[in-house]
Amino acid sequence: MIDLSSQEKIKEIDDLVSGWIKTLAVQTKEQRAKHGLKVSNKDGDHRNLVTNIDRANQKVLIDKILALDPDAHFVCEEAGEARAQSMDGQVWFIDPIDGTLNFVLENRDYAIMMALYEDGEPVLGWICDVPAARLFHGGQKTGIYENERALEPLTDKTLTDSVVIVSGRRLVVGEKPYGELAQRACAFRVLGSAGISFTRLFAGSAQAYLSKLSPWDLAAGRALAEGMGYQVKNLDGTSPNMLLSNSVLIATSSIHREVVKMVKD
Amino acid sequence: MIDLSSQEKIKEIDDLVSGWIKTLAVQTKEQRAKHGLKVSNKDGDHRNLVTNIDRANQKVLIDKILALDPDAHFVCEEAGEARAQSMDGQVWFIDPIDGTLNFVLENRDYAIMMALYEDGEPVLGWICDVPAARLFHGGQKTGIYENERALEPLTDKTLTDSVVIVSGRRLVVGEKPYGELAQRACAFRVLGSAGISFTRLFAGSAQAYLSKLSPWDLAAGRALAEGMGYQVKNLDGTSPNMLLSNSVLIATSSIHREVVKMVKD
Repeated sequence: MIDLSSQEKIKEIDDLVSGWIKTLAVQTKEQRAKHGLKVSNKDGDHRNLVTNIDRANQKVLIDKILALDPDAHFVCEEAGEARAQSMDGQVWFIDPIDGTLNFVLENRDYAIMMALYEDGEPVLGWICDVPAARLFHGGQKTGIYENERALEPLTDKTLTDSVVIVSGRRLVVGEKPYGELAQRACAFRVLGSAGISFTRLFAGSAQAYLSKLSPWDLAAGRALAEGMGYQVKNLDGTSPNMLLSNSVLIATSSIHREVVKMVKD
Repeated sequence: MIDLSSQEKIKEIDDLVSGWIKTLAVQTKEQRAKHGLKVSNKDGDHRNLVTNIDRANQKVLIDKILALDPDAHFVCEEAGEARAQSMDGQVWFIDPIDGTLNFVLENRDYAIMMALYEDGEPVLGWICDVPAARLFHGGQKTGIYENERALEPLTDKTLTDSVVIVSGRRLVVGEKPYGELAQRACAFRVLGSAGISFTRLFAGSAQAYLSKLSPWDLAAGRALAEGMGYQVKNLDGTSPNMLLSNSVLIATSSIHREVVKMVKD
């Protein structure tokens, strides 16, 4: 168990892990530039990619956490690690490369994400936009930062005045309420990475994000978004189950109310 | 008339205009940071925005061109300048802020765009991603550059292996073939700015872009894209009319063939 009993202790863990991730982000870019990528498909799906760097990054982060807490529990994207069966106690979430398709095809808009939860509640989250070298980190108790800069408190905007980000895949197959949300917003974006979508919310470039997210896609973003005052809820208004996939809306309070109404009507 | 009779003369114009745009990009960011924006709607549409900076930038660029060629003809986004009635001779295209909605709401992903055509053919194009300080410039005769760096020649990729960018507005109202193109590509993106979408093609992060574009949205991107080997055609295979709006597909040759077939079937 890691001592998270005071703001100072939590801040120490934030600083420590932020250092790991910054180093790993630099190494990720260097490795790709020097050695290229070994890419394979997961589950025979040509859109679901994994690379040697996804796997290597996950191992680096797990080893560092285990050195800190030999009994740590994990929920990781890539195979190879036993998955936590409950949210009791402390659970670490790791997405070693979020947006692997972007990493492979676009060489931009991918992220390293980590989060630490205690008894089901987010304590700290980290999302590093690797190509842009921007690390968003912190939580409810420490405040939310972009690199060293504390972020502005959230302004509550309505849908008509907002930019929303949606999962392209769910929009294009006609899943509700993706199309209606996109149409009613001032503008919408499709970016292909949960981590990068979250960074747009933190930077104030967008006010809502709707997608179906796996635990490792959601955990860090939820910790940071809730720390800034965003609502993070399933479309039926319940809290996400952090061990399953959820259709989650991360949005200002006003947009959340509008979408819950949209879904009911 | 500007002398465009040799590669050297064209290169001189490229350098000159690149200098104007770089300066204007810095001023645009400074002005916004210092004085904020005066925003108004065009045609009573809350998504069609114009700011004081759009208007000021257009005037700066027109004045510079008129100092070079007092008889210059223009096709500009903002009101106030007589619009060229034909593509005979030399025509300058100006989009003083492309992605004004992004400029206002997101403070990222907007561009300054210019192009010079002679007798209907693109000679030079400039697209400056203002927040990222990346200027793409050049043409068929000079080569295509990102700032000082010559860009890689185009690799011909097929739809299944490609990232495509589409107009979100046209996708979400069900216009053909936006949805099918998005579904059949490896991934798709919605970015909200023609200029920024073009820069993704030039940087190799995407391989196709489909949208309905006004002349000032298309002119610079067409000059640069054709210079790199992209096909720039209407969905029926004809060449865009540079004085009207066009539903244009900018894509690798393979993707162009696939989409023309998709539209016919």
